Amino acid sequence: MPKEQLSIIKIGGNIIEDETSLNGFLKLFSNLDGKKILVHGGGKRATNIALKLGIESKMINGRRITDAETLEVITMVYGGLVNKNIVAKLQALNTDAIGLTGADINSIKSEKRPVKEIDFGFVGDVKEVASNAIDKLIKADFTPVFCAITHDGNGQLLNTNADTIASQVAVGMSEIYETSIYYCFELNGVLSDIKDKNSVVKHINSKTYQELLANDIITDGMIPKLDNCFDALKNGVSKVHIGNTSMLTKENEFFTTITL
Amino acid sequence: MPKEQLSIIKIGGNIIEDETSLNGFLKLFSNLDGKKILVHGGGKRATNIALKLGIESKMINGRRITDAETLEVITMVYGGLVNKNIVAKLQALNTDAIGLTGADINSIKSEKRPVKEIDFGFVGDVKEVASNAIDKLIKADFTPVFCAITHDGNGQLLNTNADTIASQVAVGMSEIYETSIYYCFELNGVLSDIKDKNSVVKHINSKTYQELLANDIITDGMIPKLDNCFDALKNGVSKVHIGNTSMLTKENEFFTTITL
Repeated sequence: MPKEQLSIIKIGGNIIEDETSLNGFLKLFSNLDGKKILVHGGGKRATNIALKLGIESKMINGRRITDAETLEVITMVYGGLVNKNIVAKLQALNTDAIGLTGADINSIKSEKRPVKEIDFGFVGDVKEVASNAIDKLIKADFTPVFCAITHDGNGQLLNTNADTIASQVAVGMSEIYETSIYYCFELNGVLSDIKDKNSVVKHINSKTYQELLANDIITDGMIPKLDNCFDALKNGVSKVHIGNTSMLTKENEFFTTITL
Repeated sequence: MPKEQLSIIKIGGNIIEDETSLNGFLKLFSNLDGKKILVHGGGKRATNIALKLGIESKMINGRRITDAETLEVITMVYGGLVNKNIVAKLQALNTDAIGLTGADINSIKSEKRPVKEIDFGFVGDVKEVASNAIDKLIKADFTPVFCAITHDGNGQLLNTNADTIASQVAVGMSEIYETSIYYCFELNGVLSDIKDKNSVVKHINSKTYQELLANDIITDGMIPKLDNCFDALKNGVSKVHIGNTSMLTKENEFFTTITL
């Protein structure tokens, strides 16, 4: 018997920060057929609130450091303000949402990133996804909504990259389901010409990815994103889609689909 | 067949604000046998963070008003910071906790308090507890941890009294379980002499309550608290206990038990 399908949808700051975008997206998400999980980042809201609280964003070599104070703000903003407002809005759309960090039902355990050249502070690298615990919620017809926070199992919450949460949850859940990831971002997909927003590469697989890299069509920030996608595919995820939120509708075919 | 037992434990600001008290309480809570639910308030932490953010606490006739900005802070502090840290600490104690507002799994629906003499702002009066949805979590061996936030079903989160959440959840769950409420507070119980912390009235029922009232032994702030207890008892709750957190151990018998 084929596995049942499960969609993992990740949204970023650009959607969360704009009330109209968020409401529009949540409508699309609610209308999406089948079992699903939402993963959201936090965006600039945490930075703004940290600023107001007099907590400076600490950066080393362009990378953000999560000190104890910053972690508190992230826990407040991602785990409280953003997550619970999304849950309340989804309930109003008849989606029976449940907001989670990785600490809830011990769903995502991570390890504080070891200190090498840089001490990133309270940042977690995902170690274990409790697919059976998460599946209890899904089987009970609840829709999990994860924010970008995990825990180490010893009482410590950890700031964790939302893209990674989406891919690791998808990998974990692929033991039980046929999983697809939808990364919603500001572009229409992977572009062959960064100056032309309609130049969407509609399909990428391991072979064409190498060609796109060799021809310098995929560069910079897109490379780690795509490497991460192929990692997920190699570990059991069926398909990864990258595009704007309208890829969740059947009308729009302009997004990138990635398979092995 | 007798119903299975379910304990609803409510803690207030005095425990949450002090790391040592909180850790001590969470150990007692984790060791408590049987099915259980934790309900927590938020305490002065929200007021302090609101102050830092330049949001003034608005009071009318000594009652706090929850305007939109204050609700944001409450959502951050109760729903995020306090709730998720409690969940992470409980996981470290092997209690498989799940943090909730009333919006999650539509567990507690409330109505924005109607404006009469005072407009309390975004404050909710509980209307409906989804006992079956909450029971799905309990049956899955998860331990619900509620913060003092509910929702109106139309996307609006609402600040809600934690004592009321505890009693309404207990009333709702008494359809399925034999429920007991434990209100943990700073005193050892209901005192017959407010100046003597050991003068605990060990048992109160409807009849002795009238006597205690007639003799001015129970006065002031204790009256609405006890009225609220008898309301819960009249609506299906089996027992209400009032005392300090050590009443959760078997060693301490010095607390007040209230029955009909």
